[in-house]
Amino acid sequence: MEEVDHLAHERSTAQFDVEAMKVVWAGSKHALSVSDRMARLVASDPEFRKDNRVTMGRKELFKNTLRKAGHAWKRINELRLTEEEASKLRFFIDQPAYTDLHWGMFVPAIRGQGTDEQHEKWLPLAYKMQIIGCYAQTELGHGSNVQGLETTATYDRNSDEFIIHSPTLTSSKWWPGGLGKVSTHAIVYARLIVDNEEHGIHGFIVQLRSLEDHSPLPGITIGDIGMKFGNAAYNTMDNGVLQFDHVRIPRDQMLMRVLQVTREGKVVQSDVPRQLIYGTMVFVRQTIVIDASNALSRAVTIAVRYSAVRRQFGSKNGGPESQVIDYKTQQSRLFPLLASAYAFRFVGEWLKWLYQDVTQRLQANDFSTLAEAHACTAGLKSVTTSVAADGIEECRKLCGGHGYLCNSGLPELFASYVPACTYEGDNVVLLLQVARFLVKTVSQLGSGKKPVGVTAYMGHVEHLMQCKCGVQKAEDWLKPEVILEVFEARATRLAVVCARQIGSAANPEDGFAELSADLLEMAIAHCQLIVVSKFIEKLQQDIPGEGVKRQLQVLCNIYCLHLLHQHLGDFLSTSCITPEQGLLANEQLRSLYSQVRPNAVALVDAFNYTDHYLGSTLGRYDGNVYPALYQEAWKEPLNDSVVPDGYYEYVRPLIKQQFRFSRL
Amino acid sequence: MEEVDHLAHERSTAQFDVEAMKVVWAGSKHALSVSDRMARLVASDPEFRKDNRVTMGRKELFKNTLRKAGHAWKRINELRLTEEEASKLRFFIDQPAYTDLHWGMFVPAIRGQGTDEQHEKWLPLAYKMQIIGCYAQTELGHGSNVQGLETTATYDRNSDEFIIHSPTLTSSKWWPGGLGKVSTHAIVYARLIVDNEEHGIHGFIVQLRSLEDHSPLPGITIGDIGMKFGNAAYNTMDNGVLQFDHVRIPRDQMLMRVLQVTREGKVVQSDVPRQLIYGTMVFVRQTIVIDASNALSRAVTIAVRYSAVRRQFGSKNGGPESQVIDYKTQQSRLFPLLASAYAFRFVGEWLKWLYQDVTQRLQANDFSTLAEAHACTAGLKSVTTSVAADGIEECRKLCGGHGYLCNSGLPELFASYVPACTYEGDNVVLLLQVARFLVKTVSQLGSGKKPVGVTAYMGHVEHLMQCKCGVQKAEDWLKPEVILEVFEARATRLAVVCARQIGSAANPEDGFAELSADLLEMAIAHCQLIVVSKFIEKLQQDIPGEGVKRQLQVLCNIYCLHLLHQHLGDFLSTSCITPEQGLLANEQLRSLYSQVRPNAVALVDAFNYTDHYLGSTLGRYDGNVYPALYQEAWKEPLNDSVVPDGYYEYVRPLIKQQFRFSRL
Repeated sequence: MEEVDHLAHERSTAQFDVEAMKVVWAGSKHALSVSDRMARLVASDPEFRKDNRVTMGRKELFKNTLRKAGHAWKRINELRLTEEEASKLRFFIDQPAYTDLHWGMFVPAIRGQGTDEQHEKWLPLAYKMQIIGCYAQTELGHGSNVQGLETTATYDRNSDEFIIHSPTLTSSKWWPGGLGKVSTHAIVYARLIVDNEEHGIHGFIVQLRSLEDHSPLPGITIGDIGMKFGNAAYNTMDNGVLQFDHVRIPRDQMLMRVLQVTREGKVVQSDVPRQLIYGTMVFVRQTIVIDASNALSRAVTIAVRYSAVRRQFGSKNGGPESQVIDYKTQQSRLFPLLASAYAFRFVGEWLKWLYQDVTQRLQANDFSTLAEAHACTAGLKSVTTSVAADGIEECRKLCGGHGYLCNSGLPELFASYVPACTYEGDNVVLLLQVARFLVKTVSQLGSGKKPVGVTAYMGHVEHLMQCKCGVQKAEDWLKPEVILEVFEARATRLAVVCARQIGSAANPEDGFAELSADLLEMAIAHCQLIVVSKFIEKLQQDIPGEGVKRQLQVLCNIYCLHLLHQHLGDFLSTSCITPEQGLLANEQLRSLYSQVRPNAVALVDAFNYTDHYLGSTLGRYDGNVYPALYQEAWKEPLNDSVVPDGYYEYVRPLIKQQFRFSRL
Repeated sequence: MEEVDHLAHERSTAQFDVEAMKVVWAGSKHALSVSDRMARLVASDPEFRKDNRVTMGRKELFKNTLRKAGHAWKRINELRLTEEEASKLRFFIDQPAYTDLHWGMFVPAIRGQGTDEQHEKWLPLAYKMQIIGCYAQTELGHGSNVQGLETTATYDRNSDEFIIHSPTLTSSKWWPGGLGKVSTHAIVYARLIVDNEEHGIHGFIVQLRSLEDHSPLPGITIGDIGMKFGNAAYNTMDNGVLQFDHVRIPRDQMLMRVLQVTREGKVVQSDVPRQLIYGTMVFVRQTIVIDASNALSRAVTIAVRYSAVRRQFGSKNGGPESQVIDYKTQQSRLFPLLASAYAFRFVGEWLKWLYQDVTQRLQANDFSTLAEAHACTAGLKSVTTSVAADGIEECRKLCGGHGYLCNSGLPELFASYVPACTYEGDNVVLLLQVARFLVKTVSQLGSGKKPVGVTAYMGHVEHLMQCKCGVQKAEDWLKPEVILEVFEARATRLAVVCARQIGSAANPEDGFAELSADLLEMAIAHCQLIVVSKFIEKLQQDIPGEGVKRQLQVLCNIYCLHLLHQHLGDFLSTSCITPEQGLLANEQLRSLYSQVRPNAVALVDAFNYTDHYLGSTLGRYDGNVYPALYQEAWKEPLNDSVVPDGYYEYVRPLIKQQFRFSRL
């Protein structure tokens, strides 16, 4: 294929230092360097080829995963990669695999919930992958409600063992990644029963398969749960089903950092605070927010580049048609997603800090910020993953018909990303947790209890209930203090209205249930405010690189004003702004789109994605889209033969009239 | 599997005659009878099994399509099915196939654009499937903008032939269904050139493949364009690429009903009005609106039934957990989609009438309503397909994690439905056409030109610009005249504001382009009003069956008030309602959800879908979900062997430490 940069003109119009923006996006020069090296390493290694995945049958696809995971482990060791590098390597391989759960859930669960002795015994084996583990929590009949899990772990004092058992069909473990075909071990969550008494849900290390021949151990029924959304996507992963028929494990394989069962069958709470588990959730959800920015930025890269390449309508005097990216309809759908990708990046970065802060406090037995931090990360997990999933699909539509081809990269990206809305806490369930926390916060305002962390703004409830937005002309909407105040006022007023309505219900729990749809909107308002405020805070820092801060300011304003437009009903119904101010915001938004336009391609270049990682004919760095689409078509297996298999049996008889005809 | 109706209790709470509602949904007793017979015919014929599609490789999947299409044709003839029955049969086979384009595009194009002689020659061949045709319009570089097509058809007077040619890579025909591997003929759209003069885009009947051995004819390069979104979905279809190298066809294979090229090379307009083509578009888009109600109702059936089966949280004293459908958060997402399915059904039915009306007028040379009817169907195609596509994905999410499994039926339904947002007019492009029509309509109001059809309400512009909503208590929102007025006022006010802003721009075209994002919202407001008003009109008719009308009234109110809540910003910013009235609408909405709740399962039963058609473990009629999920899992090919292929090469070496280890 010719080597011409079809997007060179787009790149020449950028008004900022793209290399400096790459550092901002990556988080630091070091992070950029690691990420860049690992991306190139993967892209240049033919073992990590992925363009052929979508035509593979399930077995071939799964074997492909095993091969890649093995090769990755080989390279990680050969090159003596650090943990950070290894993690980035797996990220760029871009194929869900059992190793994600081994490193992302199994190892952290032992670290977080295991005792020192358990760490010593199990972690070295896991670090060397001498055992491969997964995380077996959800069951066929139980997802969100962990307390409803049915699997039992009954202590048998005679043998000093736990008996792990699946008492019902619905208690079958269901969904855990890596479980179906690969894991040798699992952390199994089960109801602890000692002397016929229940002691809640706890984790147990259970060996599933022989380390010699991989056959399931006695009493264990195990398999893959079948095909999932998308061609390749998560079908590279062996999500599994698992049933226990009175499987015995030694007592010391219960994870006992928080709760212990002694040899005598006494159940003892340790002095380690139970709240530690929330710290882990803050950690996991923080990584999910960063993932949302990764996935969304990837889709936006494809859509922005192809929108700059693609031309449609608007030809004047036989000249070329207009670039699609010049249409306001395209801009008004695409640029807010570009802005959201950056916004989620920065709030994700801030969540890293929050996790460190919470961890340090927990170590000092300070639980004062934990509930708030937990609500904050739960809410941000929810809003960022929902926007990212919808945003990927929107980007696909923004690419027109060709976005429907797998080689656009977008269908697979959507199918493999969208579970993020459900796993690690269903997004609606999480928002209700946030809502519960906010209602409680509001109800305590009168008592003098000061709201902490990102709910601190509610301390100014009196001001926020009555403040009036001072915007008089479109440019007034560019002032961060104006934006912050209206977003704070909106969140506060929605929360106060909801809290009042719940308060006036005969029973607060019934009131909460009845109003829960409105409570979701209140929780979203709060979460959006967090993203807005962290974006604004980011811009108050020193950001090196010519024009970089200026571009981020434009994106921040787009992010905020787009939200304002999208949720105009909230802002107007709570009288945070007037209809005229809403129109001015819209006017300003249009002007901001024009400011982003010449920088759009450079702003996605700053994500620094390789063509291998994007895996998209439409999102190619050089914009040479049409020859790429054309060449890809001929790789389709159906094109191996001119006359398709089945023609002689099923088509020719029609054409040749080998049926007796009737009425038609 | 045990034969117990797990949803029997849900069915017993219904407050209406389900059989009567089935008639309403189907449109008539006759339509219900045809639909019911065809659905059972397909479901009972093992040749039409479809649960095994998602694990097939592309070639196997495509052969499966050829087999089914052949078998369908055999059955259609054996059973002497009518055209209506045959069409329903294909519908319930539920597998995109080349026959869809043959019957849905190729035959209608010849009927609509061909002369009487062409009808006589080609239609009998097509009716008997002695030739198989497709519709080759879009090109690699040209989708929405038909006038930009590059393929040329040059008249050669010497041989009395047209020379069909693809002058560039981007002029390759791209996407047509049935083209890739099956069609023997195509209607090819190309720029007509006679004596170096261009005469616009016209259709030509071109033979592509030999009727003897199916090999492509000389000068024709043809193939499949590759994998698309989803596992099976549209991968059962051979969307194709096609290039012409100076392919010659007889002059009489240009479709000449509207424009003729004579033997001498004279280009002659016939006396048939060009506007006929808009009549065809009204027809095609009308069927798409009905399809939207089909697809959405199917997803809603699955989500409603599974929400009634699934329990999560809320266990009291160790009793069962709460049914998910009892949560207001679930109701507020699910019931508006249920209401939308019904709403789209009725507006689709009305569009059938509109098409007949337009056709009769065209035959009488009355073009007065054509532009309005065209805008109306374009807009309804756009809003219904967008809501249906998003609604299917929302239903998938409402099923929690299990919705991500292919056997839930939802991933495949989404992937095969979502192209409807792009084909037959991209939804955004269509809304801009509507917007253009509305702006024109508003600008002519002063001139005394009376708006017709569904824009008639704009004739009351003076009243609608200043009327005040009289709602004082929640129940006031149940009055159809109240609803109609606020929806009319909102649409009118948005249109007037937009028209004013465009009017004040230096150049109206630039103003239109600059404001196009707002114009989309204005167009949506108009289209939603159409759906609302047709639902209300339906309820003014006599509807037999105990309790049937009552249920439809509740659904209509939910549809309207949900839209009002979703677009609250519109209604408030145009002062159509006050914030207090918005709160009352929300209150009424919650009460309506409670009224639907006991009828929800029966309301989806009324769609009369067989388990075969639904193809969903979660949406089974009997609600026996968990055993079904469990049994499906063991059909997964990966479960053929306990130890997966690749274990010995790629997993065991890891566990057995056959690498040299390093830093990690």
